[in-house]
Amino acid sequence: MTIETQRDGAFLADFHSLSTIGATAGGGVDRQAATLVDGQTRNWFRGLMEGHGFEVHYDHVGNQFALMQLVPGAPYLVLGSHLDSQPLGGRFDGAYGVLAGAHAAIRLIEQLAVDEKAPVLNIAVANWFNEEGCRFKPSMMGSSVFTGKLPADKALQTTDPNGVTVQEALEAIGTIGEFKLDIACYAEIHIEQGRSLEDDGLTIGLVESTWGANKYEFVVHGEQAHTGATVIADRHDALLGASSLVVAAREIAEQFSTDEHMVITSCGEFNVFPNSPVVVASQVNLLVDVRSTDAEVLASADTELHRRVAEIEQRADVTIERGAEHIWDAKAYDQAGMELAADSAERLGLSHGTVRTLAGHDSTNLKDIVPTIMLFVPSVEGISHNERELTSDEDMLDGLRMLTEVAGRILQEGFTR
Amino acid sequence: MTIETQRDGAFLADFHSLSTIGATAGGGVDRQAATLVDGQTRNWFRGLMEGHGFEVHYDHVGNQFALMQLVPGAPYLVLGSHLDSQPLGGRFDGAYGVLAGAHAAIRLIEQLAVDEKAPVLNIAVANWFNEEGCRFKPSMMGSSVFTGKLPADKALQTTDPNGVTVQEALEAIGTIGEFKLDIACYAEIHIEQGRSLEDDGLTIGLVESTWGANKYEFVVHGEQAHTGATVIADRHDALLGASSLVVAAREIAEQFSTDEHMVITSCGEFNVFPNSPVVVASQVNLLVDVRSTDAEVLASADTELHRRVAEIEQRADVTIERGAEHIWDAKAYDQAGMELAADSAERLGLSHGTVRTLAGHDSTNLKDIVPTIMLFVPSVEGISHNERELTSDEDMLDGLRMLTEVAGRILQEGFTR
Repeated sequence: MTIETQRDGAFLADFHSLSTIGATAGGGVDRQAATLVDGQTRNWFRGLMEGHGFEVHYDHVGNQFALMQLVPGAPYLVLGSHLDSQPLGGRFDGAYGVLAGAHAAIRLIEQLAVDEKAPVLNIAVANWFNEEGCRFKPSMMGSSVFTGKLPADKALQTTDPNGVTVQEALEAIGTIGEFKLDIACYAEIHIEQGRSLEDDGLTIGLVESTWGANKYEFVVHGEQAHTGATVIADRHDALLGASSLVVAAREIAEQFSTDEHMVITSCGEFNVFPNSPVVVASQVNLLVDVRSTDAEVLASADTELHRRVAEIEQRADVTIERGAEHIWDAKAYDQAGMELAADSAERLGLSHGTVRTLAGHDSTNLKDIVPTIMLFVPSVEGISHNERELTSDEDMLDGLRMLTEVAGRILQEGFTR
Repeated sequence: MTIETQRDGAFLADFHSLSTIGATAGGGVDRQAATLVDGQTRNWFRGLMEGHGFEVHYDHVGNQFALMQLVPGAPYLVLGSHLDSQPLGGRFDGAYGVLAGAHAAIRLIEQLAVDEKAPVLNIAVANWFNEEGCRFKPSMMGSSVFTGKLPADKALQTTDPNGVTVQEALEAIGTIGEFKLDIACYAEIHIEQGRSLEDDGLTIGLVESTWGANKYEFVVHGEQAHTGATVIADRHDALLGASSLVVAAREIAEQFSTDEHMVITSCGEFNVFPNSPVVVASQVNLLVDVRSTDAEVLASADTELHRRVAEIEQRADVTIERGAEHIWDAKAYDQAGMELAADSAERLGLSHGTVRTLAGHDSTNLKDIVPTIMLFVPSVEGISHNERELTSDEDMLDGLRMLTEVAGRILQEGFTR
């Protein structure tokens, strides 16, 4: 057995072990942020990294860092992603990136021991808190606080549907601290969660930019009435208003997508009040988001969405209130990082191409404060946020090799914009 | 003060007392079936009736009967309705009918003591279990079991969303028994929950028939996916399918309603899974109902609904499964009862007209086993299943006079088909 085969076996064994924590009957995982299972996962990860000589610390919003000092006093190259999941999530989303980061760091430390060229940075592996944003909103909470986009107080006071705060939940699982990480640059690898790499027969995606996204919370206000006694003309049906908005969002995606720039609209959360079988709904709260790779296309689709809202208010005889909004502009990753990654893939003989990420990742935040590289490996059929999410062992191992190569070059040569 | 004014005052005082049980901040009540508050209401009603010399018994599905023997061995004229409510229901729906029945019976017993003509029937006041059907489905549960339309076992084993059975809930509040009521005929008064009496300036509605209703449980099956990464072409969005169904139902109501026969469609319950902000829904369960006064119109609207279901399956790339269905044909109340009621209204000088009931009532069940009369009083603006539900004191008192007159004639003359 070669040393490479042994190393690959160690990665796959750790990945299978990690996948048993919070495992669901359908082959996925349920590890929502700061639940007991998330605590278990964090302890498992702590054990793994301490076993390889890393020090593990938590910052004030529960981001978990495994640290290895190579150059006393130098800042850190951070490899990372997240170990939390959706309620019935897949076992690759986030988890693959953290474990690939861990094994890349472990391999590089072994390699540096026999290498001639000294490192210029220290290395850390990050498990960012609450990337998924289901138990506690918004998503990418830990990396948002870390990068100064979300005040720590606001994050810590956020409550779940039972009124438990982030602070209480993190204290309950004992994964909150006071560590401050001195970061120099960041690299993340993640499953694509789309099918472009698979369709194009590529192994590695070099992420060149994020999509722009406008996310809105809408509250449709109608009036509670008896379904069995209220004639249509007297109804102010909040469910009809909200349903019309879901249908309109899909029509807008189809209407505004061009060959060059896609528009994607979604509605993933939809709560009806009072939700009784014999009552016309008085209120529906829903989230609608509009995304595009192009700022201008996004703006046109957004204008149309707001025009349709006004039209639906008339049609369903309801009022539609727009609550909180989250707007992300389409933003590019570092050109220098793209080149470094492309060159690394060439050196390893891995097929690669540039892609855009429709989903948000912790790197979406990190890239705004430090030089950042984001890499993808293929997802079978693009299925994600689903227990059936799948990436082959081969693709996972190729991705690990790629991340190790990229991180090794950064450790020895640095990485600036 | 006349004896009439005293009696009216007693009714209104009791009504206000009853309205404080389970009172909500918005002026309504929350007395869902077999909750502690429903138990409180039932005990209050027991106290009221026992105070007037009635015996109170429960049958095997928690129907509550207050009985007064006038003719040993004779069957009962039953006046009744229900004291349970929607989660944020109005204080008149059902409660008015039970209390009007109670006061009509109390007045008649006083009157019979000084009257020459002897009664031919006994009299009872019924509080039917779970008319609303929100905590436990279906609605009209108690009267459905009583009239043999629903097996008692099935009703008793029905669970609420927390897995508590009807049997357990009724035992917990101690309102289940073994009494068997020998019923001869039935009369019920209820608020209209529509605006036709108000629009026509009438005090009493004589209900001539129920509407036909087809109620369906649909399950829309999609596939769970990441909203931030799955392109539109790859989505099987259960929420889009379900929303399209809600919009289609409204269009069908508008398309099939004629001047003569109205079609009303509703969707009052709508549950999305997994209902996370970043996940394309894998499943939506919803209830859709289609009602009309005309069987043929109803059949056409129903055919169109099923055609649209197939169309939506294609459009949203989902499958739509039809679960349980409840079909009620449009059915007439007894002609003899309509004449008796019209004659009684004339005698009292109360303006009246025939109406159809769009909503189901316990009398909808009772009329299929015994001669039955159903009466309405006006609802302000037709508002119902809403804390703002309102019927004026004057209309309530006129309705009580009307019910007393009708019940008095039945007690002394009997009522057959």
